[in-house]
Parts: sequence; structure tokens; C-alpha cells
Amino acid sequence: MKVLVVGANGQIGKHLVSLIQESESLTARAMIREQEQASYFENLGAETAVVDLEDDIDAIAKAAKDVDAIVFTAGSGPHTGKDKTIMVDLDGAVKTIEAAKNANVKRFVMISSFDTTREAIQGASSSFAPYVIAKHYADEWLRDTNLDYTIIHPGALTNDKGTGKIEAASTVERGEVPREDIARVIAACLENEATIGKEFQVVGGATLVKDAIDSL
Amino acid sequence: MKVLVVGANGQIGKHLVSLIQESESLTARAMIREQEQASYFENLGAETAVVDLEDDIDAIAKAAKDVDAIVFTAGSGPHTGKDKTIMVDLDGAVKTIEAAKNANVKRFVMISSFDTTREAIQGASSSFAPYVIAKHYADEWLRDTNLDYTIIHPGALTNDKGTGKIEAASTVERGEVPREDIARVIAACLENEATIGKEFQVVGGATLVKDAIDSL
Repeated sequence: MKVLVVGANGQIGKHLVSLIQESESLTARAMIREQEQASYFENLGAETAVVDLEDDIDAIAKAAKDVDAIVFTAGSGPHTGKDKTIMVDLDGAVKTIEAAKNANVKRFVMISSFDTTREAIQGASSSFAPYVIAKHYADEWLRDTNLDYTIIHPGALTNDKGTGKIEAASTVERGEVPREDIARVIAACLENEATIGKEFQVVGGATLVKDAIDSL
Repeated sequence: MKVLVVGANGQIGKHLVSLIQESESLTARAMIREQEQASYFENLGAETAVVDLEDDIDAIAKAAKDVDAIVFTAGSGPHTGKDKTIMVDLDGAVKTIEAAKNANVKRFVMISSFDTTREAIQGASSSFAPYVIAKHYADEWLRDTNLDYTIIHPGALTNDKGTGKIEAASTVERGEVPREDIARVIAACLENEATIGKEFQVVGGATLVKDAIDSL
């Protein structure tokens, strides 16, 4: 299964491409913004496609040609302006979803935020609300498609080394989770078709990633 | 016909409430953010409802109780941060649409931007793109409802005195239009059920507002 990783140069993305390249059943195409980022992924044996999420749907669809799945793990990040939140986290996600349709890629794994419900928007601080709103509409857009989607809602992301153990369910108590473990969760979803049509929250826990995902 | 004007204290909103109060068939309820803004509208004989568009859907639905139509003419304006663009122009609009459904108000007039197509997003400067994206998704959300909507796409808004004459069609050449004339266009749409399900661009022109709207 060939997987287009959108946001490959991000922290989750880098872990994910490594995991994919180590796996027996998956291979990665890293979608990156700058040509200079390519060598890192080429050294892992992954393909690369240079596309900016501010480009149009056609450019993304071209990057998705002949892949079997798309993972959206791009994010504008905390150091960009709020204008990037709507351009990347919302519109970049929606364009990637539309590109999946256009390129006939059915499988789509979305890395969302822990809670993107209407209630979470209303409860968010005014500095965090724009991000929650962007993720809310991106998730809504995906749910409204016929794609074989999985939506992952991670807890507070850390750069700690992964433990390989998580807790995952429709709703779990808020908590932290290493980015490396989220990459493992994504890979486990790609390898388990039973996760199609599902969405779940995930934090650090006591259950091996594969077992937690298999029992969703 | 009682009309809830969302964004009544804005420049189009103020013109609109005046026009509505002068008309024989319409009366206005001005939705405003601050109690201090109420006296202006009370002096025009309009009702008022104090609701912030960052409040929840229930608060907006309560303001929409027993009205026959809702006009969304709120905007975050050029002097607020980009965070307000997604919170007001997108999420505020969607919450108002959902409030219309919840309050069983079928008629909805949306003041959009001149061009909110995907092509317009891709062609916009990076400082204008967030606004176009926000309006794009708000329009899409409205089109996807069963509401009796009209979407108005005005050209570049000016504070010039209205001429009472416009050009309106699915697409027209880009141009300016006084806010006062947009208020007239809104009132004309409210008084003409044939505009339900339609959307159109409007700039200054040579045709009386009523005739231009009637011939859409």
C-alpha cells in the first residue's frame, strides 16, 4: 500500500514516514513544501512530491496519483499567523480531501485535534478557538464524503519518546501523547480496515497500539 | 415580515435597518453586540437583541425567535485580526445558519463577498485569502441547507451616497457599489420571493434596484 503523507516534514510526519518505510506492507510518498526537504525522505527510501498546501487541488491530486491512501498530518503550527490556520488547517485539509476524490484515492486518515465539536469551539480560549474551528470544519468536510476515512483526535502532543502504548476510544480523558506514538497509531489504522468510518481520541496509556486500534 | 439583521451595527446594517423601518411591509430586529448600541435602533422603532456572534447557536436562535427572515451582514472588518475572520465571517455565519434552522426561520439572506469561488481563493493575495476562504465555506454551508436563501455578492463597497441604481447578474464585471445600495438590494430581495435559491454579483449600474432584482 502506497501512502501519501501530507505534512511529511512535520514532527508526526517524519516519524510516520520512517515507520512506513520500516513496515513490510507500506511505502511512503512524502509530500513536502520545499525541494531542500527531499533528501531526508529519499535517504529513507521514500518517494517525494513537492507541493505547497496553498497550491490548488490539481497540484495535490497530482501528488496523490497512484497512491492507495492519504494521511493528512499537516498543521500550520503555533508559530505562524492565524491567517495560516484557515489556509492550512482548514482549506489545505479540504483541498487534500477534494484531491483524494479527484485522484480516486478512497482511503484517508485525518489527524485532527483532541476535541473539534461545537462545544469545544464554544469552550476554547479566544487564541485557541480559530484552530478548533478550522479543524472542526475540516473534519465535517471529511465526514460528508464517501471516502474511507479515519479521524484521529490526539491528546496534547509531546516530543517524548514513544512508549508504544496508548488509550483510544470515542472519548477518553484528556492527556498527553508522544508524537511518535501518534505515528504508530496512524500506521496501525492504515493496516486495519476495521478503522474505516471511525474516529477516536487517543492519549498515552497501557495498551499496545495495535491492540488498542484493533479493539476500537 | 419581521427581519433579524445580524451585524446591524455595521455600515450596511445601519442603512438596512433604516430602510426596513421606512418600508410598509418589513420591520427589523437589530442584532447587536453591545447594549450601548441599542438606542440608535430603538430610535428608529426597531427591536434589538444583544448577542455576540462568538456566543453559541442557542443565543442566536433565541434572538431569531418569531422572525420571518434573517439577514447576515456581519463582518469582522479590516481592522481586526485574522483570528476574527474565521470566528466571525465563517463560524459566526454558520452558527447563524444553524440558529435559523433551530428557530424555524426559512428565509435567509447572506451578504457574501464578490467572488468566493475556489478560483478566487487561489487567485487571492495571501492577506486577502483568509477572508475569501471564510466566506467560501459560509456560502457552501448555506447552499447545503434547505433554507430559502439568497446570496448577494457585492463589488468593492464604498461609503458613497447610494444612487439607487445597480447592475446585478450571476457574474458582472468587477466594480464598486455603495453600501447604501447594497442595503436597498437586501430589502428588495426580502420583498421578492423569486430571489429564493439565487445568488448574484452586484455593482453600481444603470438599473433601478427593484427592477434589477425583479429581473434576476
